[in-house]
Amino acid sequence: MNKRQLEELVEIFGKDNTLSEPEDLMSYSYDASHAEALPEVVVFATTTEQISALMKFAYKEHIPVTPRGQGSGLSGGSVPIQKGVVLVLDKMQKVIDFDPENRLITVETGITTADIDPIVAVANLFYPPDPGSVAFSTIGGNIAENAGGLRGLKYGVTKDYVKMLKVVLPKGDIVTIGSKCVKHVAGFNIEPIFVGSEGLLGVITEVTLALLPIPAHRESALAIFNTLDDAARSVAAIIAAGVTPSTMEFMDNTTINAIQNFKDCNLPRDAEAVLLIETDGEKGSAIGEMEKIKVAVSENGARDFSMATNASERDLLFEGRRVALNALANVKPNLILEDATVVRSKLPEMVKGIVDIATRYDLQVGIFGHAGDGNLHPTFLINKNDSDEMARTEKAVKELFELAIDLEGTISGEHGIGLEKKPFLEDQIGAAGIAVLRDIKRTFDPENLLNPGKMFDFTPV
Amino acid sequence: MNKRQLEELVEIFGKDNTLSEPEDLMSYSYDASHAEALPEVVVFATTTEQISALMKFAYKEHIPVTPRGQGSGLSGGSVPIQKGVVLVLDKMQKVIDFDPENRLITVETGITTADIDPIVAVANLFYPPDPGSVAFSTIGGNIAENAGGLRGLKYGVTKDYVKMLKVVLPKGDIVTIGSKCVKHVAGFNIEPIFVGSEGLLGVITEVTLALLPIPAHRESALAIFNTLDDAARSVAAIIAAGVTPSTMEFMDNTTINAIQNFKDCNLPRDAEAVLLIETDGEKGSAIGEMEKIKVAVSENGARDFSMATNASERDLLFEGRRVALNALANVKPNLILEDATVVRSKLPEMVKGIVDIATRYDLQVGIFGHAGDGNLHPTFLINKNDSDEMARTEKAVKELFELAIDLEGTISGEHGIGLEKKPFLEDQIGAAGIAVLRDIKRTFDPENLLNPGKMFDFTPV
Repeated sequence: MNKRQLEELVEIFGKDNTLSEPEDLMSYSYDASHAEALPEVVVFATTTEQISALMKFAYKEHIPVTPRGQGSGLSGGSVPIQKGVVLVLDKMQKVIDFDPENRLITVETGITTADIDPIVAVANLFYPPDPGSVAFSTIGGNIAENAGGLRGLKYGVTKDYVKMLKVVLPKGDIVTIGSKCVKHVAGFNIEPIFVGSEGLLGVITEVTLALLPIPAHRESALAIFNTLDDAARSVAAIIAAGVTPSTMEFMDNTTINAIQNFKDCNLPRDAEAVLLIETDGEKGSAIGEMEKIKVAVSENGARDFSMATNASERDLLFEGRRVALNALANVKPNLILEDATVVRSKLPEMVKGIVDIATRYDLQVGIFGHAGDGNLHPTFLINKNDSDEMARTEKAVKELFELAIDLEGTISGEHGIGLEKKPFLEDQIGAAGIAVLRDIKRTFDPENLLNPGKMFDFTPV
Repeated sequence: MNKRQLEELVEIFGKDNTLSEPEDLMSYSYDASHAEALPEVVVFATTTEQISALMKFAYKEHIPVTPRGQGSGLSGGSVPIQKGVVLVLDKMQKVIDFDPENRLITVETGITTADIDPIVAVANLFYPPDPGSVAFSTIGGNIAENAGGLRGLKYGVTKDYVKMLKVVLPKGDIVTIGSKCVKHVAGFNIEPIFVGSEGLLGVITEVTLALLPIPAHRESALAIFNTLDDAARSVAAIIAAGVTPSTMEFMDNTTINAIQNFKDCNLPRDAEAVLLIETDGEKGSAIGEMEKIKVAVSENGARDFSMATNASERDLLFEGRRVALNALANVKPNLILEDATVVRSKLPEMVKGIVDIATRYDLQVGIFGHAGDGNLHPTFLINKNDSDEMARTEKAVKELFELAIDLEGTISGEHGIGLEKKPFLEDQIGAAGIAVLRDIKRTFDPENLLNPGKMFDFTPV
């Protein structure tokens, strides 16, 4: 980028919000994946209009722009692999309108997702999606990645809560799409296409989110199993009983022991698997559902089923799940966290398949995740400096994806494609599917300047 | 269409499934709106491959194709205004896979929506969206229009249940998009763009729908009001109490009396408005919610609140609501049914505004509809042969749309744009919004051959 171009950026964003010193650029060269690339400039937006000006500048000067929230993404989505400008949105944190009567909140997208709940709790409302990164990731990043979380089974994912978006399109046009209304069929239903678009189609600057009433009551329990298969089959049995738990998290023996070594959360070190289950709603209904769950897991070989009798017992159960990834990270120098996902009924096959793959490639794997929605996180525990182990891991990951696709599942349940899974997307959606994605990308960003190089290869005509 | 072209169609669909006699064409020239146009040929598809062949033929010969389910649409979406071929999907009725373990069903899109529930009820599941046409409209039509219904507030609309689609794109490519998984972020989230696309972007031939467990219990009640405003304010008060009824239907005095003249449903002829309310879920929770509702409506001026004490009382309440439109159709020779929608908190203003517009233009209006989600159906009762009344009605409808937009609402909550609301769409979404729709249309259908002339004007380049 030349001096004149840099000056134009300073004119748009101001001197304090335009960084180009190497030590500053470094901080914006990576996310929570394994990818890295230095940008040429980092800018911090404070208004939608600045972003519109930036995109017009980018189109005029043919400079790539990579939008970014807090950089907690797991697939390389915010890594500026074609250099150019990193556009940081985390200074855009205004709460534009909290509308409890209609159970809606409108915010700028740089706000941290966890900051929403305290604002809306005063009206007894909450925002359901809760990705693992909820305490630090921005709502804009959550939207760009269509973030999931622990409550997907009952409450869905980010896309289920996005009502309206303000978007800066790649060429700089500002559009407001969607509606605050529950029902709205005026024009194509286009806001969902920006949810999970990984920053390839537009920069989302404002969002109106749907909220739900906080459930009056929660019941939490831990079911303990001597075999992985019993735990996996129990998940299907619970759903078959007509129950929809708000949380149903799976942890295997490797994960349990990693957690206990990290922090004593009172988990049974000798169990092959546990399910952490929560029901919520009116008190009677939450208790009734938990009783049905107890029956279902007992019939499927649970050796123990203990309910939290108070808040601190519950907190301890969830603490274990929350630290799982950090705990696994302590086992070996590095880890590869995956999110291949299947329909619930295929969980027993998926778990068996993961163990089989890890065994064949002589790899240590911890399996935990959102069993209720079929979204497990098989986590390979490795040492990156061990090139033989790395080679085996790469093969194992490829087989894992093939297994997910064979089981009619998906190579990514909630982390996105970005750079990490780009080589595998065509296996998932086929050449015709990729062609549709390219057509859509071309429609919005014909010069390929907004977050180029991610998700699929795209060459401007 | 010339003889050779007709023969090509016969080759694709067979002689019995290709109609070109004037008396046959007539039956496919209209829907439930006020629009009419004769096609040149009507074809009945029985496979996705036939539709792919049709679209390739259409692109080769430059012939418009208008897809159609049962023709119950209210906005002219399936009227072949540029002639050509009407493609009827209602012979495609196969149930491809019922998967109770994952609460999914996969069907061809010509199946009638109401035919789904009996299939899935054996596993205690149901398909929530229930548009007024549910007994005869096809699921494909419901998807193309993103159909709503009585349960939108608690259960959402069609788009919330579409997991996977098989789509024939305008140029004939067949793509399968979406996933059966609860979480899936591999590629753009494109299936929602086909939901509510009114047949402009592709022909949907198969769908995988999400299902929910049938609620264990329902509580139904009728709240009676002496003023429209009390009823409208009660809706907001119920939501503010943290309750989410499964149904909350509004009927005004004109509608009540039309129903009572049509069939005695035990509705109070002297009431200015009633709310028909239902809660569902576990028994205790449904009863508890209804108790909160009773308090909320009493505090907002309900003069009476009566709960159905058995199934036949409940059926009678719902019978009244179900016959409302037919009953209003008996009052005057014609009616104009609208679906302008606002957020719930704006209902009192909307109701007042509708009455005000009708008064100023000296028109009789019946107001009923889905108050819980702000989706009212103001229905102007008119005589089309009275040209002065028609002229006043047109002005009134225009003002109604302006009012909805002023109140941050939408000109269409669930009926779609089609032909009827095409002149008003730009007021709703702006020139930039229309430009995005045109870009998307161009991406999929550059020659404008699939359902041309609907939603917005589009000229191929």
